[in-house]
Amino acid sequence: MKHVPGKLILVRHGQSTWNVENLFTGWTDVDLSAQGRAEAAAAGREIVRERLAPDIAFTSVLTRAIRTLWIALDEMQRMWIEVERTWRLNERHYGALQGLDKAQTVAQHGEAQVKIWRRSYDIAPPPLPAEDPRLPRFDPRYAGVEAGLLPATESLKDTLARVLPFWHARIAPELRSGRNVLVVAHGNSLRAMVKMLDNVPESEIAELNIPTGVPLLYELDDTLKPLGHRYLGDPAAIAAAAEAVRRQTEKK
Amino acid sequence: MKHVPGKLILVRHGQSTWNVENLFTGWTDVDLSAQGRAEAAAAGREIVRERLAPDIAFTSVLTRAIRTLWIALDEMQRMWIEVERTWRLNERHYGALQGLDKAQTVAQHGEAQVKIWRRSYDIAPPPLPAEDPRLPRFDPRYAGVEAGLLPATESLKDTLARVLPFWHARIAPELRSGRNVLVVAHGNSLRAMVKMLDNVPESEIAELNIPTGVPLLYELDDTLKPLGHRYLGDPAAIAAAAEAVRRQTEKK
Repeated sequence: MKHVPGKLILVRHGQSTWNVENLFTGWTDVDLSAQGRAEAAAAGREIVRERLAPDIAFTSVLTRAIRTLWIALDEMQRMWIEVERTWRLNERHYGALQGLDKAQTVAQHGEAQVKIWRRSYDIAPPPLPAEDPRLPRFDPRYAGVEAGLLPATESLKDTLARVLPFWHARIAPELRSGRNVLVVAHGNSLRAMVKMLDNVPESEIAELNIPTGVPLLYELDDTLKPLGHRYLGDPAAIAAAAEAVRRQTEKK
Repeated sequence: MKHVPGKLILVRHGQSTWNVENLFTGWTDVDLSAQGRAEAAAAGREIVRERLAPDIAFTSVLTRAIRTLWIALDEMQRMWIEVERTWRLNERHYGALQGLDKAQTVAQHGEAQVKIWRRSYDIAPPPLPAEDPRLPRFDPRYAGVEAGLLPATESLKDTLARVLPFWHARIAPELRSGRNVLVVAHGNSLRAMVKMLDNVPESEIAELNIPTGVPLLYELDDTLKPLGHRYLGDPAAIAAAAEAVRRQTEKK
């Protein structure tokens, strides 16, 4: 049976406690800040205000994304929809930079090197050392994942390479069957999807800043090519949120 | 591959706002009370204290069960585990009694009739009238369910008949594969499982009161027959919780 494709709503998780402290987070499982919770609720309200009704939600296995989803679903009174979690929607793994203060890293390595690690397409930060207890293989949430797939660091390119199979295997079929899909994930796993959907060049994707907690709505044609996309909510607030993300690596 | 079966943890959702108001709830989607939220958190803490680590959770499509699960998973720091929702774990449908005050129903129909509706095995309350807007077919959360399966009222026997296929199809295979399973559900959908697991006679199952928010742990043999079960937590508190449930139909 031929369906009109469902709508796709992307939401980047709200501010985390490590965003507040200006630390590289990656796969570190930090929670939302109070502001992050408020952003998550606002995202839910915008989705309701647009009369959008997600039928299924996808998220990562990281608390800050799951809690953003929970708060948004609660606002929507749609706690009952199907939710699927996957490590493939996790934030980019930041390797040995995880847990470091961004401003200090800039002071040590220079803004140019940090900018390369943050904003290049295919250069990964130094990996976590072998036997580092923070390696994903020591975390029970990755017990079901083939060891060879689990990263010790990632470039944006690496992140894309593990997000896209999940898009094709799980998200695209739901959209094709006519269901509205909500994806609550992270700056870089969402960049992976936006790059593919809008054919953003490798040289530009790292500079694309998706603001936290602002739903990004895609309407799609039969082949899942975007007919267009727009952020839901007040344009001035959205611009301010995007600017706040961009400023994170500037020295304090 | 042969596995040691996983452990099974049953949790009845915490107190709801309609429990407080003494109304028949059934499939009405009411939320937890403040006390219900506290019970959910306590359930999570008991599971942690026993060093139990659920690998997957099943719940109903009703807010009070989902929120109990969310709060418990948050306490356990296991928000990342797989969660599957199903209408088959919903509370028993209470038909035309839904929304009525329990004490008033007793005053109108007599305690004996109400006891029959609440505590008989195979007698269902009067159904919701055809075209009643509260019928499940008008609720989007049941849009994917075959219309003939959706009840307008249920006896406990009817509830069992729709819970058990889900047990066999989804819960039992997970236990057999060695995963620990958490089920957060409702008084009667949990009775269905307990009846089957412990071979409780039809004449006794309706009198079995599972207290809210107290995890009930089953250890199982290779054929998923119980080796034993016990409630997790302080025995005096558990007895008080069970007594509170029993007292709900007594006149005020």
